[in-house]
Amino acid sequence: MRYELYYWPSIQGRGEFVRLALEEAGADYVDVARGKGGVDRMMRVMDGAREKRPPFAPPFLKAGRLLIGQTADILLFLGGRHGLAPKDEAGRLWTHQLQLTLADLVIEAHDAHHPIASALYYHDQRPEARRRAEDFRRNRIPKFLAYFERVLARNPRGWLVGARATYADLSLFQVVEGLSYAFPRAMARQAKRWPEVMTLRDRVAARPRIKAYLASERRIPFNEDGIFRHYPELDG
Amino acid sequence: MRYELYYWPSIQGRGEFVRLALEEAGADYVDVARGKGGVDRMMRVMDGAREKRPPFAPPFLKAGRLLIGQTADILLFLGGRHGLAPKDEAGRLWTHQLQLTLADLVIEAHDAHHPIASALYYHDQRPEARRRAEDFRRNRIPKFLAYFERVLARNPRGWLVGARATYADLSLFQVVEGLSYAFPRAMARQAKRWPEVMTLRDRVAARPRIKAYLASERRIPFNEDGIFRHYPELDG
Repeated sequence: MRYELYYWPSIQGRGEFVRLALEEAGADYVDVARGKGGVDRMMRVMDGAREKRPPFAPPFLKAGRLLIGQTADILLFLGGRHGLAPKDEAGRLWTHQLQLTLADLVIEAHDAHHPIASALYYHDQRPEARRRAEDFRRNRIPKFLAYFERVLARNPRGWLVGARATYADLSLFQVVEGLSYAFPRAMARQAKRWPEVMTLRDRVAARPRIKAYLASERRIPFNEDGIFRHYPELDG
Repeated sequence: MRYELYYWPSIQGRGEFVRLALEEAGADYVDVARGKGGVDRMMRVMDGAREKRPPFAPPFLKAGRLLIGQTADILLFLGGRHGLAPKDEAGRLWTHQLQLTLADLVIEAHDAHHPIASALYYHDQRPEARRRAEDFRRNRIPKFLAYFERVLARNPRGWLVGARATYADLSLFQVVEGLSYAFPRAMARQAKRWPEVMTLRDRVAARPRIKAYLASERRIPFNEDGIFRHYPELDG
């Protein structure tokens, strides 16, 4: 079965967490909206007069007759199917819990440049973004990354959960990459406080399928339309 | 087995979504931080030098040897244990997907009064809150509630999922109650656009265990320390 991933074609965004899981799994998938007429197809599913269980927003994944929205829900599904999460209930819930904490951080990373409204342009909320980004750099990034550092420090195997890479590891990699793109000065200053997190980032990047993916054209470069945006004035 | 719920004792907050599920399930639980010395106990679990899998923030639930953080993850667990979600994979994922969409709305409801930083007081971010709340009232509440209206309209059984109440229904009830408390004028103006949502709210409120809970002292009143806050200047 070929999965169909639906997500905006010009950004990594939330879709990237799903792409990384599909790539690491070596799954057969098509990134629908990047093909011809794909955005229209995506919008038709969203409008979804015919969908019994319509998604609220991209990304969503078609897996045979299943249509699954919400990044963390998609990963919960893929984790079980492709060995990207433990099989036991406790391990499955713990992996998901970590993913949900990363999802909170992703929202805050977005709101650092869009604190007032997603529907407004960045330049219409610049003063507010400056204030919010300062708090995000000084207080929120350290709080979240110190937490993941603590979790990693308790597992001698070097992963967030157990002895193998899970989707939460892939997502932490993506978040660190994104933060490093958006806030290079702040992250360079702080990186030495999170050696375990940085090591994990490198370990994920070195996995053969992820490495091949990152070097391919399937990996969309970071840009200023996505979640992680580099606006130098927000980097302190 | 008695569950231990850990959450801030003076607000509904995110803990309320868990409380509602425990109450509907008729589960045996203790709201730890509302007892003597309970907040200290909660903070010790959080600091958690001894916890193998420490939570990032309240709420978290102890269920025997399991310690589960993140509201949606707790509900995923409780849903399976207490028949508050379908047993089949598709139904389980769909219920969770709806919960995650509600979780996004909850974050936005909070950020309507705290658009700059959680760590700052409201009066230190009032002008920004005014701008954000306006967008929230005009664009975001309608977008989210129209979505849930659409989902409900497709299910003749009157619930979000299948033929029985799930934790997503309880959560939608709580969100509508919270929005109605925080934005009474905006909600009164808009309520007629979402008849199915309002009917669902009433159906949940009338369930015997929920009704008893809402009338009890266990239900903390809404207040201006929680997620849903009534600041008249943010209500348009």
